[in-house]
Amino acid sequence: MEPRISLITLGVADISRARRFYESLGWTASGASNDNVVFFQLAALCLSLYGRAALVEDAHLPNAGSGFGGVALAHNVRAREDVDHVLNEAREAGGTILRPAEDAFWGGYSGYFADPDGHPWEVAWNPHFTILEDGTIRIPT
Amino acid sequence: MEPRISLITLGVADISRARRFYESLGWTASGASNDNVVFFQLAALCLSLYGRAALVEDAHLPNAGSGFGGVALAHNVRAREDVDHVLNEAREAGGTILRPAEDAFWGGYSGYFADPDGHPWEVAWNPHFTILEDGTIRIPT
Repeated sequence: MEPRISLITLGVADISRARRFYESLGWTASGASNDNVVFFQLAALCLSLYGRAALVEDAHLPNAGSGFGGVALAHNVRAREDVDHVLNEAREAGGTILRPAEDAFWGGYSGYFADPDGHPWEVAWNPHFTILEDGTIRIPT
Repeated sequence: MEPRISLITLGVADISRARRFYESLGWTASGASNDNVVFFQLAALCLSLYGRAALVEDAHLPNAGSGFGGVALAHNVRAREDVDHVLNEAREAGGTILRPAEDAFWGGYSGYFADPDGHPWEVAWNPHFTILEDGTIRIPT
């Protein structure tokens, strides 16, 4: 299994609402999107929005679950001051600030917002991780 | 907010167990990993493993939740026959097959496995999405 992820699918209660939120961040949905699924090209991978119930059914998940399922996405920025800027942008788009940015014990600065379905995103500046020009992140080998 | 994801963090119950599972897939952990967090470079992004309780605390999540939280990861392959091969590899590494591969209504072929913490991964062949040489996925614009 090659070490890569192709898509991240967020199960959502209302696809139109979720689409509007991510479009409000300035992201453009793929023309392959429709009423049942929405795709965004995010650099090397794809974010998709899909009905939560349909996703449970598709994956034959044994437990429908509720609340936080243990997955957090992170958007790393190139400069410390960009963290607050991106958190503000997410709030203005209709997101909820879970935790305002603060200094982290690992030497960076980060905060969290949740999208309209509660999916958590960390916005982080991490001086130990390099972000290349094309947005690729490089961690130490 | 640039359209990109830098890290995906999976909250896990036992970091050593989760690390062994992903290493059994042939993936190499970053030297920046330690007893509390493990990083894998996955093409343009980073997969990290972190204690679930620590993640809830870090993100100030209002609801600890249980079971499936609505996020599925997908690993797309270049050829239809690779789907069964990767699902077998995941099972041999200690994963659980949630749904064996079958033909999909959207014209592809896919199945799902869960890692030791229940995080679902779809393994899919999708003839409409292009996978470049470096593993990057390209969806229609």
